[in-house]
Parts: sequence; C-alpha cells; structure tokens
Amino acid sequence: IKKATGIFMTGGNQLRLSSVIGGTKLGAAVLDAHGRGVVVAGTSAGASAVATHMMAFGSSGATPKHRMAHVSVGLGLLVNVVVDQHFEQRTRLGRLLAVVAQSPSLIGLGLDEDTAAVIDANDILDVIGRGSVTIVDGSDVITDAFQTTGHKPMMVSNARLHSLPSGYRFDLRARRVLPLDDSKRERIAQLAQGRIARMVRQAAAEGRDDRALERRRARHEDQKASE
Amino acid sequence: IKKATGIFMTGGNQLRLSSVIGGTKLGAAVLDAHGRGVVVAGTSAGASAVATHMMAFGSSGATPKHRMAHVSVGLGLLVNVVVDQHFEQRTRLGRLLAVVAQSPSLIGLGLDEDTAAVIDANDILDVIGRGSVTIVDGSDVITDAFQTTGHKPMMVSNARLHSLPSGYRFDLRARRVLPLDDSKRERIAQLAQGRIARMVRQAAAEGRDDRALERRRARHEDQKASE
Repeated sequence: IKKATGIFMTGGNQLRLSSVIGGTKLGAAVLDAHGRGVVVAGTSAGASAVATHMMAFGSSGATPKHRMAHVSVGLGLLVNVVVDQHFEQRTRLGRLLAVVAQSPSLIGLGLDEDTAAVIDANDILDVIGRGSVTIVDGSDVITDAFQTTGHKPMMVSNARLHSLPSGYRFDLRARRVLPLDDSKRERIAQLAQGRIARMVRQAAAEGRDDRALERRRARHEDQKASE
Repeated sequence: IKKATGIFMTGGNQLRLSSVIGGTKLGAAVLDAHGRGVVVAGTSAGASAVATHMMAFGSSGATPKHRMAHVSVGLGLLVNVVVDQHFEQRTRLGRLLAVVAQSPSLIGLGLDEDTAAVIDANDILDVIGRGSVTIVDGSDVITDAFQTTGHKPMMVSNARLHSLPSGYRFDLRARRVLPLDDSKRERIAQLAQGRIARMVRQAAAEGRDDRALERRRARHEDQKASE
C-alpha cells in the first residue's frame, strides 16, 4: 500500500470491510495513502466504506422510516458524507433521507449502478456513468426523527434533493450544483475510465489463483447478508 | 350528483376516468359539486384524476429520466398539484420529480398506499393513514429537463422534498409544513374514516348485481395497462 498509486475496493459486505480493515495498520495505510494524494476508489460495499460514517445495512423503500438504516464506523476517507449504492435499483432513498434527517451535517450520496462520484481534493464531486448520483442536503431539514418510534414513517421536511447525471459537478462544501463544463467533463471521464480499466485488468490478473472460486462463494454469502 | 354530499372515485385507470368523464356533463357536475363544498375523494386512479394536470402513466424508478412520465388533462378539481399514488410501493419518485422539474408551478404529491391527503378549501393538506405523503416543491429547481433526450436521466437540482406521515399538515399555498396539532389531527382522522367507511359500505351495497364479476374483470385488464 505504501507504494500504491491507486487503491480499488471491490463490493461484497461493507461491514466486513470496515470490521476487518478498520483500526488496523492496513486501514491506517489506506488513510495515509489517501492523504498523500493516492486515488482511492470502490464499488458497491467498497464505495460505502470510504465514509467516516458508513451506511452499514438497512431496508429498502422510498419513504423514510425509523430503524430503517444502520450506521457504523467506516474507513474515514470522506468525513462529511454518507454513501449509499445500488441506489435506484434497490430503492434506497428512504434510508438515506432517514440518516441525513438524523445527522444533517452529513451530505447523503446515493450512487446508481454503473455510475461513479469522483471527489477531488477540493470536495468537488464529478458524476460519470450511465445513471445519476442523488444528493440529499439536510441543511434546512425539519424532522421528528428524534421522536419517531418502532418502524413508523418519520417526518422529514425541507430536504434538498439533487439528481445529477453524468457530466454534472457538485460542490460538497457550498452544497450546490456547478455549471456544466463539457471540456472538463470529457477529460475526466476518459482519465477515470482509463485508470479504472487498468486497475480492473490488474486485479483480474492477480486474482487468477486456485482459491478464486472459493473466495467468490464466500463473497456471495456475505452479499446476501448485508451488502 | 346534484344531490350528492360526497363523491368517491375508485381505482382502475385514470386515463379511462378522464377520457370517459372529462369534458362531459358528468365531469362538469363533479366540478360543480366540488365548487359548492361537496367532498370529492378518490383512491389510486381516482386520486390522480382530481388534478387539472393528471399523471396519466409512466415508468418506475427513483431517478428522474426523460420520457418517464406522461401527463394529460384530469378532472380539474385541484389546479396546482399533480398527484401520483402507490408511491412508495411502486417507486414513483423519479417520474414525479421529472414532472415537477418540467413544470415547477405544480406541487408534486406522492401518496403511499393506505394513506390519504385531505385538502381543505384553504389548500391545507392533512395526512392520514399508515404511510407518508411525499411532497415535491420545484420552486427553486435548476434542471436540464428541457434538453434531455431519449430515456436518459435528467438533472434536477434544488428540489425541496417533504415526507409527511399521518397527522402532519402542509400549506400548499405557502409551500411549507405546519406545526403538529394533535387535537385537530385526531378529530379529522375520525371524521374522515367514518365518512369513507359509510361511502364504501354504500358502494358495496349498490354494487351487488349480476355484472359485478364482469366489471371486476374489465377493471383488472385496465389496471394492468396503465394504472
């Protein structure tokens, strides 16, 4: 990790990622690498795990309800966001709204499948891919999240919602969408796709050993449990 | 209809409702009745049809996309809203966001199943029932809805989202949630439940004739097509 110029975390089970790596020398090395400018990327569970407050697991649905989302400690690369994935495909707006209503300092990021949020050192988020990134800003939220009980729906009023397809950028500090910049957009998309393709090829090459099937099976069990 | 003190429209196919009733003497009579203070209620397709701009049909999903929602002329009882139903159960946020982004003068109302929005003469909306009413306010929306093509995701930024469970009220003119009023809440819920129960019993009694099964079959076909 000390020599890596890019780190990519695969999917599976973010609680496994955070509980195996979090707080270890490996976790610290990933954090250090990120601090010195190494690109850290992840898909599915690997995307959720980058946040300080990690969406660990929860239930589906568009309406926010009490006890819908469970948050735990992530790897700490992004301190001001909570990341959810398979967002449109598994209908996870409800649980993202629930977390942001309870913790308005966090910006909720919901990533559709085949879609990425590229966040640079200035906290500018760039969307690339086939779907959209949903951003939930709870700055002005009025809620009864603190007094809802059981699994009842909670009141969330005044949440600001942004749904941004490929090419759009969002300033996570100012919490607003930025004007479209076509030239920059294509350059970033090309750069990112090239880098990710290289990383995936490399990971695939390294993964060709006897235990690949065994690992795949174990991963599948994990996924069903809590991805 | 001229002597009715309450009108209840069942579910099925809102395009059938609007194309059979809209623009006829029956449609005008319903509108007149509403004007003189008669309570007009509807479930499913019957709820969508009350608006001037009616959500006719569309596709599911949480992310707004071009060509996702089709709007047509409704019965005209509510001029400033567009109503969608089975909201959480069929994941219809995307199409509601798409309509509101294209027409920010409309307030989007998404009704979960077993949940009602009771709107009084002052445009105060009261939520009763098991789920929530989702309200989308596009007053400050920034969008590229006018230039998206095909079935691609559209950019919608700064949509205000409210998710209100039973007991909460929303001022549709001021576009803001109102403080909780427990005494009023219970009174309205009791009144509404009593009235609706009576109407349903009456409708059930009147419906006991030879052609009930035939009608139910026809309705089922309609539902699959476009409810």
